[in-house]
Amino acid sequence: MNVQTVQAAVREQRPLVQCLTNYVSMDIAANVLLAAGASPAMVHAEEEAAEFAGLADAVYANIGTLSPPWVESMHAAVAAARERGRPWVLDPVAVGATGYRTSVAVELFAQRPTVLRANAGEVLALAGAAGASRGVDSTASSDDAVEQARRLARDSGCVVAMTGERDVVTDGDRVSIVSGGDDRMPLITALGCSLSALVAASCAVHEDAFEAAVAACALLAVAGARAGESAVGPASLRTGLIDALAVLTSEDLTSFADVRDVS
Amino acid sequence: MNVQTVQAAVREQRPLVQCLTNYVSMDIAANVLLAAGASPAMVHAEEEAAEFAGLADAVYANIGTLSPPWVESMHAAVAAARERGRPWVLDPVAVGATGYRTSVAVELFAQRPTVLRANAGEVLALAGAAGASRGVDSTASSDDAVEQARRLARDSGCVVAMTGERDVVTDGDRVSIVSGGDDRMPLITALGCSLSALVAASCAVHEDAFEAAVAACALLAVAGARAGESAVGPASLRTGLIDALAVLTSEDLTSFADVRDVS
Amino acid sequence: MNVQTVQAAVREQRPLVQCLTNYVSMDIAANVLLAAGASPAMVHAEEEAAEFAGLADAVYANIGTLSPPWVESMHAAVAAARERGRPWVLDPVAVGATGYRTSVAVELFAQRPTVLRANAGEVLALAGAAGASRGVDSTASSDDAVEQARRLARDSGCVVAMTGERDVVTDGDRVSIVSGGDDRMPLITALGCSLSALVAASCAVHEDAFEAAVAACALLAVAGARAGESAVGPASLRTGLIDALAVLTSEDLTSFADVRDVS
Repeated sequence: MNVQTVQAAVREQRPLVQCLTNYVSMDIAANVLLAAGASPAMVHAEEEAAEFAGLADAVYANIGTLSPPWVESMHAAVAAARERGRPWVLDPVAVGATGYRTSVAVELFAQRPTVLRANAGEVLALAGAAGASRGVDSTASSDDAVEQARRLARDSGCVVAMTGERDVVTDGDRVSIVSGGDDRMPLITALGCSLSALVAASCAVHEDAFEAAVAACALLAVAGARAGESAVGPASLRTGLIDALAVLTSEDLTSFADVRDVS
Repeated sequence: MNVQTVQAAVREQRPLVQCLTNYVSMDIAANVLLAAGASPAMVHAEEEAAEFAGLADAVYANIGTLSPPWVESMHAAVAAARERGRPWVLDPVAVGATGYRTSVAVELFAQRPTVLRANAGEVLALAGAAGASRGVDSTASSDDAVEQARRLARDSGCVVAMTGERDVVTDGDRVSIVSGGDDRMPLITALGCSLSALVAASCAVHEDAFEAAVAACALLAVAGARAGESAVGPASLRTGLIDALAVLTSEDLTSFADVRDVS
Repeated sequence: MNVQTVQAAVREQRPLVQCLTNYVSMDIAANVLLAAGASPAMVHAEEEAAEFAGLADAVYANIGTLSPPWVESMHAAVAAARERGRPWVLDPVAVGATGYRTSVAVELFAQRPTVLRANAGEVLALAGAAGASRGVDSTASSDDAVEQARRLARDSGCVVAMTGERDVVTDGDRVSIVSGGDDRMPLITALGCSLSALVAASCAVHEDAFEAAVAACALLAVAGARAGESAVGPASLRTGLIDALAVLTSEDLTSFADVRDVS
């Protein structure tokens, strides 16, 4: 099963993931990457973003707290990653909420990310299906959007990882549903952003980006479920989830990862 | 009692709170809002701050790590909120410490926030009573400053929530004292900033801003006291406090909120 | 023993530490300072950085997420600290990784920090010994680099605190090795950055910067070891470590600090 393969490869290869991500997510995304075995680097200055991308095993761009200089640097880092054939992941936070945000997301998406990681509302907004995104939370149900995600993946050539209560991962052809987790996970800020970072780390070590994205989603879901067993609320859930990422064994993944192929 | 009413309304209505706040506070403020039931969005770019404020149920401006572009965006978001009759909250972190900080705080305060949330030193500094603010901690006692807060509220037409060992909330006419919490809460960075965010969420769902501010202060105090029962130090206190915000019941608030009317 | 003296002095004097540090580290560095008894202030705008440094007991500059305006402000704050004879600490995160980062680090280092806190790869890179730094993690072993650190300290007149599995602190003449901690500490993002902040706080209250740096390293190591006794993974380790900073007694330090003079 690929979940274990990817987990082991991240731990062994410690991929360097350059993150150009929002301020809210920096702490948790870095800690999630470290716990999973990867090596995060938050590098965004125009003066070095592209050069650093020449060292990175993957690039991760997230528009949560975007501003023009950061967007410039995202484009520069993405271009450098593409040139070297390295994967990059786009997280189009709250695309659809404002005109600026939407145009930035569309322009970045045109650079064909290896994986687009978003909630259903964001996938719908990016697919042109109206401004369904309210703030950073989704208002559309994942179920409604599976077909949209598949079409977006097929049309764009990207893997789409549309996450929510259940995660839908598709490359336009294959579709997998990842279940599990804990229903309090949406109360942890930037956990979706952290998952995007984990997808980038997974793509860095596993060539099939569809499988890598499924593995990252499954790993987070198992870690969340494990943490949920003893969590009192969202903050202890966060602590337990990060701990779990570091200590989950291959056997834990075998027993608890819930991935269904629905292609 | 209004504390329960406001808590329930935040959980039910999930107000979208646009935060233009300092880097240090982003993680904890977002998590506090989510745990309490609100929906945070950190959006600060000039290109979208005002447009996003058109979607938000409240705006929160905090000058902790201010710089000119952020201040511009605060003014734009605040203006948009005011135009739509939506509440906004100002947290004038360390006003009085530098000339720049003071002038920015004064200019924002002139836009008449719904609630000013600050410690005693900041209230005094903003009220013109000398540079009593040293860094981000207060050096003046809350007791000395109650009368100043009341006068500031009366003169400005804002609610003033002056927090510290005890919180003093006043609209110039009414004065309430909120007690409780845990004496290690000042060791949690940006907890005051998070309270300001919670005040904004409360104002979004409860028209009487004085009552909303009292409710937010009481909710945090009860959560802090609950967390303090088992906390070893400031980090476990933080975890427990955020957990408590998510799990406190209306009955907990009835039993433990300590609000005295001293008008 | 100086570890206890410095710990007590930080708690008693509550030094105000102005931090111009990377976004990833802000939350944890502020919480580490508060737990240890110091008073953090993140102030970076050009409009106030130097003025604020006139109030601060120490300045801390960290280039983790550097950009030109921040670097300007670092120079301004450092100049103000130097003028007043206040200590300042440099953390040259990932120096060597890009040309921009290296030139900024070299220029800041030329302002002669009181203490340079870095991992072995960064010390080597800054000492001109090739681009040994990959991302923010060290690839060179601490052992290989002791002599380089000593030479760098001697040549520059700075104290060098080269941290890793064991910490090496040297002023070019004296050399101390600090052992302890927990081997999962590298999985906590920005813990090294937080140690740099703690070194700044220690220098603010203890004139001998070599002793102050040793004390800060030892305090963190003892806190980490204490937390490690019950931590499940890196997130609970972080919580426990911050808690421990607040509750460790002088006796704990006497019993558990492991500092060897190897001059």
